[in-house]
Amino acid sequence: MKALVAEALGTFILVVCGCGAAAFAASFPVEGVGDLGIGLHGVSFAFGLVIVGCVYAFGGISGCHLNPAVTAGLFAAGRFASSKVPGYVIAQVIGAIAGAGCLLLILQGHPDAASVSLEGVANGYGEHSPGRYSMVSGFVSEALFTFIFLTVILGATSPSAPAGFAGLAIGLTLTVLLLVGIPITNLSVNPARSTGPALFIGGWAIGQLWLFWVAPIVGGGLAGLLARFLYAEETTAS
Amino acid sequence: MKALVAEALGTFILVVCGCGAAAFAASFPVEGVGDLGIGLHGVSFAFGLVIVGCVYAFGGISGCHLNPAVTAGLFAAGRFASSKVPGYVIAQVIGAIAGAGCLLLILQGHPDAASVSLEGVANGYGEHSPGRYSMVSGFVSEALFTFIFLTVILGATSPSAPAGFAGLAIGLTLTVLLLVGIPITNLSVNPARSTGPALFIGGWAIGQLWLFWVAPIVGGGLAGLLARFLYAEETTAS
Amino acid sequence: MKALVAEALGTFILVVCGCGAAAFAASFPVEGVGDLGIGLHGVSFAFGLVIVGCVYAFGGISGCHLNPAVTAGLFAAGRFASSKVPGYVIAQVIGAIAGAGCLLLILQGHPDAASVSLEGVANGYGEHSPGRYSMVSGFVSEALFTFIFLTVILGATSPSAPAGFAGLAIGLTLTVLLLVGIPITNLSVNPARSTGPALFIGGWAIGQLWLFWVAPIVGGGLAGLLARFLYAEETTAS
Amino acid sequence: MKALVAEALGTFILVVCGCGAAAFAASFPVEGVGDLGIGLHGVSFAFGLVIVGCVYAFGGISGCHLNPAVTAGLFAAGRFASSKVPGYVIAQVIGAIAGAGCLLLILQGHPDAASVSLEGVANGYGEHSPGRYSMVSGFVSEALFTFIFLTVILGATSPSAPAGFAGLAIGLTLTVLLLVGIPITNLSVNPARSTGPALFIGGWAIGQLWLFWVAPIVGGGLAGLLARFLYAEETTAS
Repeated sequence: MKALVAEALGTFILVVCGCGAAAFAASFPVEGVGDLGIGLHGVSFAFGLVIVGCVYAFGGISGCHLNPAVTAGLFAAGRFASSKVPGYVIAQVIGAIAGAGCLLLILQGHPDAASVSLEGVANGYGEHSPGRYSMVSGFVSEALFTFIFLTVILGATSPSAPAGFAGLAIGLTLTVLLLVGIPITNLSVNPARSTGPALFIGGWAIGQLWLFWVAPIVGGGLAGLLARFLYAEETTAS
Repeated sequence: MKALVAEALGTFILVVCGCGAAAFAASFPVEGVGDLGIGLHGVSFAFGLVIVGCVYAFGGISGCHLNPAVTAGLFAAGRFASSKVPGYVIAQVIGAIAGAGCLLLILQGHPDAASVSLEGVANGYGEHSPGRYSMVSGFVSEALFTFIFLTVILGATSPSAPAGFAGLAIGLTLTVLLLVGIPITNLSVNPARSTGPALFIGGWAIGQLWLFWVAPIVGGGLAGLLARFLYAEETTAS
Repeated sequence: MKALVAEALGTFILVVCGCGAAAFAASFPVEGVGDLGIGLHGVSFAFGLVIVGCVYAFGGISGCHLNPAVTAGLFAAGRFASSKVPGYVIAQVIGAIAGAGCLLLILQGHPDAASVSLEGVANGYGEHSPGRYSMVSGFVSEALFTFIFLTVILGATSPSAPAGFAGLAIGLTLTVLLLVGIPITNLSVNPARSTGPALFIGGWAIGQLWLFWVAPIVGGGLAGLLARFLYAEETTAS
Repeated sequence: MKALVAEALGTFILVVCGCGAAAFAASFPVEGVGDLGIGLHGVSFAFGLVIVGCVYAFGGISGCHLNPAVTAGLFAAGRFASSKVPGYVIAQVIGAIAGAGCLLLILQGHPDAASVSLEGVANGYGEHSPGRYSMVSGFVSEALFTFIFLTVILGATSPSAPAGFAGLAIGLTLTVLLLVGIPITNLSVNPARSTGPALFIGGWAIGQLWLFWVAPIVGGGLAGLLARFLYAEETTAS
């Protein structure tokens, strides 16, 4: 039960902070000064560093997945019981929806609240890709980046890695993936993170949601299978 | 006594570095080159990384709260004696006021010293919000962000977290909260940090100060109560 | 065998993330807003932080060189068997080529795919230096920066350094080297990373490739020899 | 002897990377794109993160001072023998001069080499302050920021701090000080770092050099004396 609360709360925090940075601060024009906003760079650090914080806060309770693709990858690697998968995924999605709702609530207090939406933080491809990348590019990159993400997660938490550093390795790797991939799909690698804003936007965002479930789970699952080979002795030993 | 000196000195350092980055370097136009300033991104890192340094420097002496909302949250979680709360809070506020005064002193040496003030580093809502967000948005976000901050602090310092990493987890999480929230209230999550500049500005800054005491303490206190459930065994065990 | 897979996979990830950040996100103009791209700053962090992730993921399997100059430096320092050098270097080059190919594949989905190339991520000197620095400046800086890189690697992994922190020290130092050197040669310090994109560009990129093999290996080798003196007791002790 | 080589080499690396980032990459205009340079933000991270790397590389050999004010502060705190002070300071200054010379050498390969100088990386006050801050502001801030720097160094390396994390705490704190103080004096807090470029510039840079020796040593010395009180038990215990 505690683990499920931690997964929901952590995913809530991830969406509030990561998507919130994009919604509130990516661009911040100041009259007579210029744009002091944090740009794609700052959004990348917001997503990655909040994972650093969450891993150290929740890692001991639930393992701090906060992401159905992480749960799938750990399952594929043989490190997570199938019976716990559905509960984790449901908790993550609930947390992400609550986080997106919370952002909308705060955005109501913006002077241009009428024009405010979460469109800018949703994941998309084709005409909804920030850089207008195609669906194929989106699928390949989401699968590839989730594969990289899970490979680092599974390696950094294997017994051969120095204890304690996994939170930094994982969060900073997520920062890197966003530095690379925001222009392609707004970078998800996390089906729950994609689902939260999409539900409030509806329309195209829900129509494109399938890619942000399928590609990350495919990529994460492949990384899990590879980890059975790469980290074989260690996982048996643990 | 040493603990109180550490709390005052640490909060002094936090205000000098965090608010100082905003006052001196957020925008830095260079003729014929453009604006090389650090923007909201750099200010976020200044606040967060100085906390990293302070936790490793003062954590062993006072626990390195540097923030009445942190003290309140630790008290609510049952990890800090009520008898020590007033001394800590007073030391923090004294340190923050000294820090703000020190910034004003250095600003006197600026060529445009006549027009220099700490207005840009104060916390505010409504027409004094950097992005003109309403009081309700400000209250919700200050309470929410302090809740997140304390949840990470209480988790990362619980016995189930790897020892030593709390400083990084806490400081980097503060960076994230600033990346998200500067446009809303200039992001406080720390009543002492808000009080320092406000006293030198007076007027509206003092009139709005109540929110930056009430909201962070409410958010931090709630996180403390939640931690009694989430980290129950561990706190009993410690 | 596992070590070779780890070297190829890690170098693949390095090129996908480091060169990918430069290719996809260095500049990202948004209509009516401005350029929200990550700039040279973000590219520097992408390269450095992905090394942080990889060291914690692959360090226990292969030592996580991902770079022929690192392999050469460790060999010169007497810490790596000569018999393993060829396999490592081949695996690294294969990984880098695969990474560059993968970036081209994703770039096919860009609306301006016809004009897309990897020219912007290749290393070069003279008229192909980002800042038009001469061949001599390029050679000196590649040798010097690789010397610095290997000095930190060899020191941070020596027995006198605190265990576990090498990944952070190494990755963050690589970030620094990029912050300094991108304008000079696009900063390589890694012959494999240079070879990947060059093969797909051909022409000048292959013609200039010699420098990005010779200079880093000279610099890395010198650092290895110095380490025999600086960290002498420790290496004997280990 | 090894310690002196490490101090000279480390200070050389600090100047090459920190001042080099400012000289090569602070501004980097790309035709038709805009300025992709790293700005004051990137320079701050270059200085701070190279210290992270150096502490883990050289800490076990010389303590990794790389800075006469650090040496002075450790001496004032009773943690460094007076007999070793002169050798350390001379090694640091030699390393810094070599680093500045090396930057000039690389700059010769720039197409506008005739107009190239190290003026932009020198420390200064008054009309040579980047933001035209007065001598008094410069003195106060250099003393204050060095005081903060040494307080963190002495705390993070005291026995009450978790082992191993000092390199991160110290380097990230230096990043913060630069984020705040570059506009005031180009932020030195390190007499050797100031001396290197000044010798090649001559004139005003040498005339103002006194401040960047006196203020940091005063600030660092005061922090050392305070540390005798703050970390008393621990230092006796060690």
